[in-house]
Amino acid sequence: MTVSYNLDVVETSFIGFLKLQLRWRGSIWKSVMRELILFSAAFAFITLVYRSNYVITPETRMIWDNFAALFDMKLDYIPLTFMLGFFVTIIVGRWNEIFNNIGWIDNAALVMSTYLRGSDQPSRMLRRNVVKYMVLTQVLVFRDISMQVRKRFPTLETVVAAGLMTEAEKQKYDEVNFRYNKHFMPIQWAYAILFEARQGGKLSADIMLNEIIKHITEFRTGLARLLNFDWVPIPLVYPQVVFLAVRSYFVLCLIARQSVLIDGEVPKDGNQFYPLVPFFMTALQFVFFVGWMKVAESLMNPLGEDDDDFECNFLIDRNLAMGMVIVDETYNSPPPQEKDAFWL
Amino acid sequence: MTVSYNLDVVETSFIGFLKLQLRWRGSIWKSVMRELILFSAAFAFITLVYRSNYVITPETRMIWDNFAALFDMKLDYIPLTFMLGFFVTIIVGRWNEIFNNIGWIDNAALVMSTYLRGSDQPSRMLRRNVVKYMVLTQVLVFRDISMQVRKRFPTLETVVAAGLMTEAEKQKYDEVNFRYNKHFMPIQWAYAILFEARQGGKLSADIMLNEIIKHITEFRTGLARLLNFDWVPIPLVYPQVVFLAVRSYFVLCLIARQSVLIDGEVPKDGNQFYPLVPFFMTALQFVFFVGWMKVAESLMNPLGEDDDDFECNFLIDRNLAMGMVIVDETYNSPPPQEKDAFWL
Amino acid sequence: MTVSYNLDVVETSFIGFLKLQLRWRGSIWKSVMRELILFSAAFAFITLVYRSNYVITPETRMIWDNFAALFDMKLDYIPLTFMLGFFVTIIVGRWNEIFNNIGWIDNAALVMSTYLRGSDQPSRMLRRNVVKYMVLTQVLVFRDISMQVRKRFPTLETVVAAGLMTEAEKQKYDEVNFRYNKHFMPIQWAYAILFEARQGGKLSADIMLNEIIKHITEFRTGLARLLNFDWVPIPLVYPQVVFLAVRSYFVLCLIARQSVLIDGEVPKDGNQFYPLVPFFMTALQFVFFVGWMKVAESLMNPLGEDDDDFECNFLIDRNLAMGMVIVDETYNSPPPQEKDAFWL
Amino acid sequence: MTVSYNLDVVETSFIGFLKLQLRWRGSIWKSVMRELILFSAAFAFITLVYRSNYVITPETRMIWDNFAALFDMKLDYIPLTFMLGFFVTIIVGRWNEIFNNIGWIDNAALVMSTYLRGSDQPSRMLRRNVVKYMVLTQVLVFRDISMQVRKRFPTLETVVAAGLMTEAEKQKYDEVNFRYNKHFMPIQWAYAILFEARQGGKLSADIMLNEIIKHITEFRTGLARLLNFDWVPIPLVYPQVVFLAVRSYFVLCLIARQSVLIDGEVPKDGNQFYPLVPFFMTALQFVFFVGWMKVAESLMNPLGEDDDDFECNFLIDRNLAMGMVIVDETYNSPPPQEKDAFWL
Amino acid sequence: MTVSYNLDVVETSFIGFLKLQLRWRGSIWKSVMRELILFSAAFAFITLVYRSNYVITPETRMIWDNFAALFDMKLDYIPLTFMLGFFVTIIVGRWNEIFNNIGWIDNAALVMSTYLRGSDQPSRMLRRNVVKYMVLTQVLVFRDISMQVRKRFPTLETVVAAGLMTEAEKQKYDEVNFRYNKHFMPIQWAYAILFEARQGGKLSADIMLNEIIKHITEFRTGLARLLNFDWVPIPLVYPQVVFLAVRSYFVLCLIARQSVLIDGEVPKDGNQFYPLVPFFMTALQFVFFVGWMKVAESLMNPLGEDDDDFECNFLIDRNLAMGMVIVDETYNSPPPQEKDAFWL
Repeated sequence: MTVSYNLDVVETSFIGFLKLQLRWRGSIWKSVMRELILFSAAFAFITLVYRSNYVITPETRMIWDNFAALFDMKLDYIPLTFMLGFFVTIIVGRWNEIFNNIGWIDNAALVMSTYLRGSDQPSRMLRRNVVKYMVLTQVLVFRDISMQVRKRFPTLETVVAAGLMTEAEKQKYDEVNFRYNKHFMPIQWAYAILFEARQGGKLSADIMLNEIIKHITEFRTGLARLLNFDWVPIPLVYPQVVFLAVRSYFVLCLIARQSVLIDGEVPKDGNQFYPLVPFFMTALQFVFFVGWMKVAESLMNPLGEDDDDFECNFLIDRNLAMGMVIVDETYNSPPPQEKDAFWL
Repeated sequence: MTVSYNLDVVETSFIGFLKLQLRWRGSIWKSVMRELILFSAAFAFITLVYRSNYVITPETRMIWDNFAALFDMKLDYIPLTFMLGFFVTIIVGRWNEIFNNIGWIDNAALVMSTYLRGSDQPSRMLRRNVVKYMVLTQVLVFRDISMQVRKRFPTLETVVAAGLMTEAEKQKYDEVNFRYNKHFMPIQWAYAILFEARQGGKLSADIMLNEIIKHITEFRTGLARLLNFDWVPIPLVYPQVVFLAVRSYFVLCLIARQSVLIDGEVPKDGNQFYPLVPFFMTALQFVFFVGWMKVAESLMNPLGEDDDDFECNFLIDRNLAMGMVIVDETYNSPPPQEKDAFWL
Repeated sequence: MTVSYNLDVVETSFIGFLKLQLRWRGSIWKSVMRELILFSAAFAFITLVYRSNYVITPETRMIWDNFAALFDMKLDYIPLTFMLGFFVTIIVGRWNEIFNNIGWIDNAALVMSTYLRGSDQPSRMLRRNVVKYMVLTQVLVFRDISMQVRKRFPTLETVVAAGLMTEAEKQKYDEVNFRYNKHFMPIQWAYAILFEARQGGKLSADIMLNEIIKHITEFRTGLARLLNFDWVPIPLVYPQVVFLAVRSYFVLCLIARQSVLIDGEVPKDGNQFYPLVPFFMTALQFVFFVGWMKVAESLMNPLGEDDDDFECNFLIDRNLAMGMVIVDETYNSPPPQEKDAFWL
Repeated sequence: MTVSYNLDVVETSFIGFLKLQLRWRGSIWKSVMRELILFSAAFAFITLVYRSNYVITPETRMIWDNFAALFDMKLDYIPLTFMLGFFVTIIVGRWNEIFNNIGWIDNAALVMSTYLRGSDQPSRMLRRNVVKYMVLTQVLVFRDISMQVRKRFPTLETVVAAGLMTEAEKQKYDEVNFRYNKHFMPIQWAYAILFEARQGGKLSADIMLNEIIKHITEFRTGLARLLNFDWVPIPLVYPQVVFLAVRSYFVLCLIARQSVLIDGEVPKDGNQFYPLVPFFMTALQFVFFVGWMKVAESLMNPLGEDDDDFECNFLIDRNLAMGMVIVDETYNSPPPQEKDAFWL
Repeated sequence: MTVSYNLDVVETSFIGFLKLQLRWRGSIWKSVMRELILFSAAFAFITLVYRSNYVITPETRMIWDNFAALFDMKLDYIPLTFMLGFFVTIIVGRWNEIFNNIGWIDNAALVMSTYLRGSDQPSRMLRRNVVKYMVLTQVLVFRDISMQVRKRFPTLETVVAAGLMTEAEKQKYDEVNFRYNKHFMPIQWAYAILFEARQGGKLSADIMLNEIIKHITEFRTGLARLLNFDWVPIPLVYPQVVFLAVRSYFVLCLIARQSVLIDGEVPKDGNQFYPLVPFFMTALQFVFFVGWMKVAESLMNPLGEDDDDFECNFLIDRNLAMGMVIVDETYNSPPPQEKDAFWL
């Protein structure tokens, strides 16, 4: 489910900032909290072992200190910031493209409702069925790429039950025995009945038929691109490298951030709260980097089930309802033409 | 309201630079000032506590110094620069797209005014109403996504009162009972009366009807994309991480930047003005980073009410007036054809 | 005026590099020189004060040294490099888009010259006037956004005097009383006379009329986008932050770069030329960063009067001449058809 | 073969992270493993020589230590992170474009199946042959740029054997003696028989012929762009610089990372496990940088034989099967039109 | 001449890496070698002066050491990495656009060959001449922007001699006296004879004429964009800043990298090979940065004469031959229609 927060940022202000930070659903807090607690617990445990004289002698601690210092010095071998920055930029580009191809029925429905005339039952059926076929295609495609939709429509029977397919259509669909996906079939049906409509004179010109078909083609091509994005993801190595880098960085921090050094030396007064500073700062760093990584993780699969993912089921329902209303209920019912308020 | 400053940068010069800096509306100063004062006050207060011997003994101060140094050393765990750089780049891309889809009526009006003939009252009404329907759609969409427009048109009644809808049209609109938005309805009306115009021979060719409808479709699709951008923002985690990083950085600065160290040591002469340097530099840093962040904040919601946001109400008025003039007042009135000045 | 330097980079070589560096117009030297001299003078003056024993005692100098060191250490709070890098990238994207929409008449003229037949005077007048109207629109738009063109055509009278408008056309134009810009009017005239040409049979098919109109629409839409870019610039805060960062950085350098320290200590031999190194390096840094900033400054307003800005007046003259030649002088005069040299 | 891992990232969680990391095919582990082992072996060998007193005297070791320190200090002359970051971003853009032009037959087949009527044998043959010609073109193009396809179809005979060309067609193809590639020929055949179909009345309107031809042109243009990408790669210097930088960096690490220094000094207690830290951290760095580089390497030639490369042979088979089913098996067989489930 | 190296990167492996590195044409080695040798010689010479006691006394050397250290410390004022990274990214974008507009004749030729019927001599002449005119335009444009083509066709006479223009056409071309370029003329001729073909019935529909003209327009618009890119390059300041930064950096290195310091001190044992390390590392850095800069230099003018530049002359020959074969030799000769191998 997408998380809208635009109302919180209407004006740039400190209140807006607070409102933004205090959201829970889809927030950095929700996605980072569990791992942050784990990290803190592990850190605390190691600190306990490390600082208490019961477990470790001061001599051993000195050696440990050296290990910690060595690890700390070399932690910047891991180029976290840039890996994340470049990776997120690439992922955002991909996410945008997916979003732009997700499939809205409006253009096709509006043009069809205008060009394809007739209030008689066959004409209405025709328009409604084209809409249904388009939504059906969307369902078939989404079942392959979105867990949400797959859960809602685990089998074709459930699609039939939802009214998106008649038994006869399902039979037609099942008849074709084909190794690859058959998502194109409802689109082909739509084209075929539109062509008949042109032959039957319900469409008064070839250019009108062509225009409707263009809009449906655009819809289908978008869905096909979704399938392609699913087929060819960003090469596995890239996310592996980035995610591994982030997590190994913080695993190493568990050791590397234990000692307290100012300019390479332990502060003499030995205040017992000093170790809190590296811990606190590392935890903060954890929130930022892991949060940033979560951006990438959640954008990588925008059709999944995270809080921020596209609501595919909503879109299906919306397309169906919207399409039906446009081609049927509000078909050819412009308001009476009057002079407007600015008429001179 | 957008802030134009192009005249200040006609020539790249130092004067241009000064003019640019001395603007107030939409400026860095306006957006940063309040928070900068708060920050400075907090900083000054802590300095007072920290430096005066009445509150803290020199021994405690030494411990504090160590804390400050520790925090200062670890401040660069927060990758401000890159987070902001990458984030702003992504936001700017989105802002651009929003701007490109904001909806200008000119193309549709000009083509309609050319192809759809007739100076009689019904023809004029037809053209004017198509324009009105397009602007009406824009108002309906903007009411959902822009606070400015929502304030201007809190209810449909106010839209009717503004002359953008007749009572009859509002009734038509209200009649349809529909769970999703009904922004498409005026567009459908426009299509329907254009189709009638073709049937009535006011449009002499199908390709002309199609061309007008294409331009209106483009207008509507742009508005629909605005709605989509509103529906699916950048995942919440991203701005949260970035904004939180900036603000926690400067909260930590309140402690971390209190001590004055040159190469890790307090300067011996103890000049009392030394602490001004870290303060001044931190304030400067505050201006740059918070200013940069403000760029992101104000671009994230370009239809809001910041100084820099798009003037949606202006656009609505302009589209209505422009459309009406094009399709009616200046309809079919080319100047007399004469030989031009360069005729050979 | 744009500065072409492609011939200098035909081959990548050291000579090419020198040629590139030794240009003056539009060069880094020209844009940086004045400010570099100012900066150097200020730096030298402060050095004088700072190093001479007449003004400052050695004790005071020590304190000054500490100040300089403090400032120098904290100069990297200002994230110059990345601010400039990201900002320039965004500005270059915008500059590209502006350049792509600047308006070339060729396509419209060529297609019109092909489809719109007739060598008689009315046909020629028609074609020539469409070209004139297109250029006129460009002039009207450019007057609003380009200082160069505004200076050339300060009033509509000057436009008439230049032959881009007849008196009758100006009268038509002035007749319409309208709060918003009227740049669309010549385009509408062009559409109207083209429609008449179709009705008069000078255009033999609707699709031809439509094609010409499409090309003119593209031309107009490009110009309209220029106006939009002018209306909604990059939010003021962004250039303010970046330019302020660069300049305050170098103002601080005047103090921060006065002392000479190697590994935190003044070199013992006290060679008097040591201070030249920080000065020289800072001057070099000045050249690079201010030069980089100049890239951004000059790209931000590409229709201004810098050396590198688009030559709008040239474009207007060129479009007019080119359009007229295409639709009139070279109208329908293909060479005699012969077998080509490769005929088998 | 592309590696799909979307199911592993449905939800962003730690389990998902682990699943992602534990894949082998196309993984960072598979691509880095061999080189990592080599690197570790070399490192271990040098350590052995370096640390054991049999080979080197302590005095020599001191000198070696200095060398190692010198190298280590200067390793950051090599700007690995940014070279890789910028390079990968550019390569990903190119990879995306290649992917977008790889050629899907669906649109052309669906439109042809709708517009080109007739269930008689010549009509079916016509539609099927257009599909075959399109796939044949794809095979001819892919043979030039994809090793996988070249291996499958080493000669034209194998293409004939696979049924993608008849003997007569191959003869036609071979007849034309031409210095440049002849990939356009099957497309031209397709155009020619479609034109005949229009003349024979199988296509009822010119606009339908034109629409089919547009879709085929789009398919061919995409394939032509693949050839162009192959003809003009990213200039050789760029990958050379980047890959050389990565590898020389790690070769230098073999020496530079041998000594253990904390704040520039060897730790006094001389624990023998200290050298493991620089080794371990360097190995980790190796995994990240070489892994990142592998992303670039594998994206540079996406039609190659890496695990992550596009499956060209699959695409060919899929296009052929899909096209044939669309234009023949499911031709003109819409299900019976009934009222849908939501009929009011 | 473009340098293809795709076969070297079919599989990502170490061998592939070596093959890539060992190329000479268009390689980093070729472009960097000369300057690297110069740099090394200068460096060696300065080292000689610096290290030998004959020229400099140890006291002077100490002062020199301080200078070197000062320069070395301040070298990072020059933000090489980011300037190069951002600059190259921008240049690559531009290079891509140039490449996408370079002009391929295939689409226009294929569509014309399909729609424009007739095997008689006038029809063949017509089609062939349209192709010739397109290639002629390309030659005229390339002569203005590509040194390679300019050298091949220094005058119009050479164009005539190459058979791309008849004497009569050249006369037509010369007749028009025009201040701006006349590259549009052959395109206008092509349009004119195509229009005649439509009037003569050789094209059976207006939409077919329009489609051919669209493809030619696309070709011409691409070439016009090349001219525009040539007219308005990236503002001179940008490459000047970047190239100057790189070169002054390495000039400064000649001094700055002479001394050998470990943690700020000269190593005591004074091994005479220590100075080799800074030299070697600086040379390596030289290779990477100058190589990276060469990427930018060679991409900035992709129509020049570097190894990596587009082969314009090849493209012209290819377009001419390809166009002629398509519109004439293989005109309307589809193979006999048979059942395909998969017929059921």
